[in-house]
Amino acid sequence: MAQWDSLWIDGHLATMVPGTAAYGAIRDGALAVQDGRIAWLGPRRELPGEPARCAATVHSLGGGWLTPGLIDCHTHLVFAGSRVHEFEARHGSHGSQGYEDAARQGGGILATVAATRGASPATLMAGARTRLQALLAGGVTTVEVKSGYGLDLDTERRLLQVARALGRETGMGIRCTFLGAHALPAGYAGRPDDYISFLCDTVLPALAAEGLVDAVDAFHERIGFSTAQVERLFARARELGLPVKLHADQLSEGGGAQLAARCGALSADHLEYSSEAGAAALAAAGSVAVLLPGAFHTLGETRVPPIDAFRRHGVPMAIATDCNPGSSPALSLPLMMNFACLRFGLTPGECLAGVTRCAARALGLGDRGTLAPGQRADLAAWDIGTPAELSYWLGYHPLRQAVIGGRPVTLH
Amino acid sequence: MAQWDSLWIDGHLATMVPGTAAYGAIRDGALAVQDGRIAWLGPRRELPGEPARCAATVHSLGGGWLTPGLIDCHTHLVFAGSRVHEFEARHGSHGSQGYEDAARQGGGILATVAATRGASPATLMAGARTRLQALLAGGVTTVEVKSGYGLDLDTERRLLQVARALGRETGMGIRCTFLGAHALPAGYAGRPDDYISFLCDTVLPALAAEGLVDAVDAFHERIGFSTAQVERLFARARELGLPVKLHADQLSEGGGAQLAARCGALSADHLEYSSEAGAAALAAAGSVAVLLPGAFHTLGETRVPPIDAFRRHGVPMAIATDCNPGSSPALSLPLMMNFACLRFGLTPGECLAGVTRCAARALGLGDRGTLAPGQRADLAAWDIGTPAELSYWLGYHPLRQAVIGGRPVTLH
Repeated sequence: MAQWDSLWIDGHLATMVPGTAAYGAIRDGALAVQDGRIAWLGPRRELPGEPARCAATVHSLGGGWLTPGLIDCHTHLVFAGSRVHEFEARHGSHGSQGYEDAARQGGGILATVAATRGASPATLMAGARTRLQALLAGGVTTVEVKSGYGLDLDTERRLLQVARALGRETGMGIRCTFLGAHALPAGYAGRPDDYISFLCDTVLPALAAEGLVDAVDAFHERIGFSTAQVERLFARARELGLPVKLHADQLSEGGGAQLAARCGALSADHLEYSSEAGAAALAAAGSVAVLLPGAFHTLGETRVPPIDAFRRHGVPMAIATDCNPGSSPALSLPLMMNFACLRFGLTPGECLAGVTRCAARALGLGDRGTLAPGQRADLAAWDIGTPAELSYWLGYHPLRQAVIGGRPVTLH
Repeated sequence: MAQWDSLWIDGHLATMVPGTAAYGAIRDGALAVQDGRIAWLGPRRELPGEPARCAATVHSLGGGWLTPGLIDCHTHLVFAGSRVHEFEARHGSHGSQGYEDAARQGGGILATVAATRGASPATLMAGARTRLQALLAGGVTTVEVKSGYGLDLDTERRLLQVARALGRETGMGIRCTFLGAHALPAGYAGRPDDYISFLCDTVLPALAAEGLVDAVDAFHERIGFSTAQVERLFARARELGLPVKLHADQLSEGGGAQLAARCGALSADHLEYSSEAGAAALAAAGSVAVLLPGAFHTLGETRVPPIDAFRRHGVPMAIATDCNPGSSPALSLPLMMNFACLRFGLTPGECLAGVTRCAARALGLGDRGTLAPGQRADLAAWDIGTPAELSYWLGYHPLRQAVIGGRPVTLH
C-alpha cells in the first residue's frame, strides 16, 4: 500500500544541505512527497520497498538531477510601461546617457512610477504573470516581489495585492516586500524627510495591517535615501514586527552594508562598492549578501562586489534577477548564476546555493531552499549531468519539470 | 476570393531593408505569403481588400512586430559529450585554468572530438535537436552548423549528415560548413601539413561530392592552423567551387582578418584582436565580420572587436551564438544581441541587422534576412513594442510565433 503521495527516482539529489558532499549530493537518490512536503529522501537502495508500492505516483528524473525549486529573492516584478526607450537612449547612438543621469532627468524609476500609477490591476497582473511564467521556466518556484513603483498609498497597495493574487493564482511562493522608499515622488521634491514620515505614519502601517507586507526595503544611495532616513523607516518596520532588507552600495560606497547590518537586515543587496568592513559587519549580523549581476551587466558596471571578503568573513551569498524594467530586464535565474560565476567569480556550487539555501535565508524562509524532510516540496528536476551545468548554459534552461508543493507544474 | 495563402496583420513590420526608416519599419503593416515566399508587403491600408478576402488564413500580430526569422550564422551545434567539467575546472576553485591551457592539455576541442567519434547518429541527432529547438524558441529559423568534432572522414561525414537530417526533419534552414581544420587530431600530432593534405586530398573532396558542404571554414590561431595551411585548404575549396569562412583573430592578432579578405571569405569570425588594417581589408573584400559575444563572455575576454573600425570602413557586422560545448554554451540569439549591445557597443538596430540581413550575407544566402517580395517566408512574430526590445531582455524571448516557409512552427 502506498505510503506517500509521490516519489522521485532515477536520478540524483542536490539537497544543498551543507556538509561534506558537493551540492549535498545523494547519487541515485529518491525523494518522497506527502501533503506537499518532503516526507523522506535518501539513497534509492534505502527505500522501504519497490517504488510503485511506496507511492501513489512515481516520477522519473531520467538520469538527471533534482534540486530545490529555485528562489528569486530580489525582483521588482510588478510594473507597467516600458523603459526600452531609455535602453535605446543609452545604446542607440553608440552609448551616451548613464543610469544616474536618466534618474536625475525624470526618467528612470519615476517613469515607471507614472506608468504604473495609471495601470489597472488587470494590466499589472497580465504583465507580471508573463514574467512570472518566464521565471518558472527557469526552475523558480518562489519569488520575492517589491512594491516601489507606486510611491503613494493606493498604488503601493495595488502592487502588493497583485503580487499576492499572483501567488494564489499560480501556487508559487510569493514574498511581498514594501519598497515605498524606492525613489522620491514628484510631490515630495526637496522634502525627502516628509516623504519618509508619510511612509512611516500612513503607508507602511496601513499595508502592514492589511497583511500585504512580509518585509521592508529601502534604496540607500546618492540618488536614493540617506542613512538617517533609512534608519527611521526601519525603526518603524521593527515596531511593526517586520524584517528589513536594503539596496546598498550599488553605485557608490555609502556604508550601506554596515547600515543594513546595524539594522539586523535579512539581506543587503547589490554591494558592488561595499568594503571589507561592510563584509565583516554583514557577517556579524548574519545578513545575506544578495548579488544582482543582471544590473551590473545592464548598467555596464566594472566594479565587482567584494566576493573574497564575503567568503573570508562567511557572509552567505544569494543571487537574484533584480527583474525590473530599467536596470535589469532579467527573467532567467540560471542566467544570473552564469553571470555570477563568470563575472563575479563565484563557483558553480556557490551559485546554486545562492539561488536556493542562501536565497531562502535572504527572505527569512526556513521551509525551503534545501531538500530535507519537512521542507516544502518545491522542486526543480533538470536534464543535466552535474549541477554545475545550471551555471554553464547561456540562455538555455535544461528544466525537465518544476514542482510546487509536491505538484508538477505545467509551463505556459 | 483569397489570392494569398496567408496574411499577417495587426502589427508592424521590421523589414530590415536598408533605407531611411530605422529597422526598415512599416508601421501598421501587412505581409502576405504565397507558396512559402513573401508575396506582398506594405502598409495595411494598401491591401487590395478586406484581410479575410485577401488570404485563406489571417494571422494577428497582436500589436507586436514581425521580423525576418533570425539567422544564427556560426554554430558548432552537433557534438556529443559534455565539457562542464572544464567549466568547473576554470571556475570551480575560484578560477584557474585558461582556454588555451585546456586545449594544450588535451581537453578543449579534442575532448569533444573523442566523445563525438564514439557517438551514434541517433545520439548526435538527439542532442542537436534539443539545441535546435532552443534556438528556435528564440526566433531562429536558419542555423549554420559546422563539422569539426570528427577530424576524420567518417565522423566529419556523420556530423554533416546529422545536420542535413535535422534540416529535413524540422524544416529549418540548415547550412553545413566543413570545419575539418578545427584542431589537429592526435594521429597527426606534429604533422599539421600532412593533416591539411589529408583534408584537401581526401576528406573535403569526398564530402563535397556527397553534397554535404555549403562552405569551408578553418581555425586560424596560435592553437589552430597557420596562414599557409589555411591558404592551401581554401585554394582547394575554391577549386571545388565552395565559399570560405575563417575563425580569425580570436585569441591573438594574427592577421586573420586580412587572410580572410585575401581569400574572398564570406565572413571572418570572432575578430577580437583584429586591427584597423584588418577591418579595411574585410571592407574591400566585402566580407562580413561575425561577432561572437558568447565566447567573449564565457572565456572572460576583455578585448573587444574593433567595432568603430568596422563602422568606419563599412564592414557588415553579424552576430551569432557560436554554440559549442567549450567556449560558448549559448542557445539564445537574442541574448547574444544583448551582449553585442552591452559589451561590444552595437546599437539595437545593428544587433537586429546582425542576426538577419548581415547574417544571411555571412552565409551567402540571398533569399532571406529581410522582409521583401520573393524572400522566403521565414518570419518571427514578437510581442514587443519596439524592435530594440529584442536586445533588451536578459534571458527572455518575447516570441509570439516562429514561421518557416510560411508555416507557423510549434515549439517543443
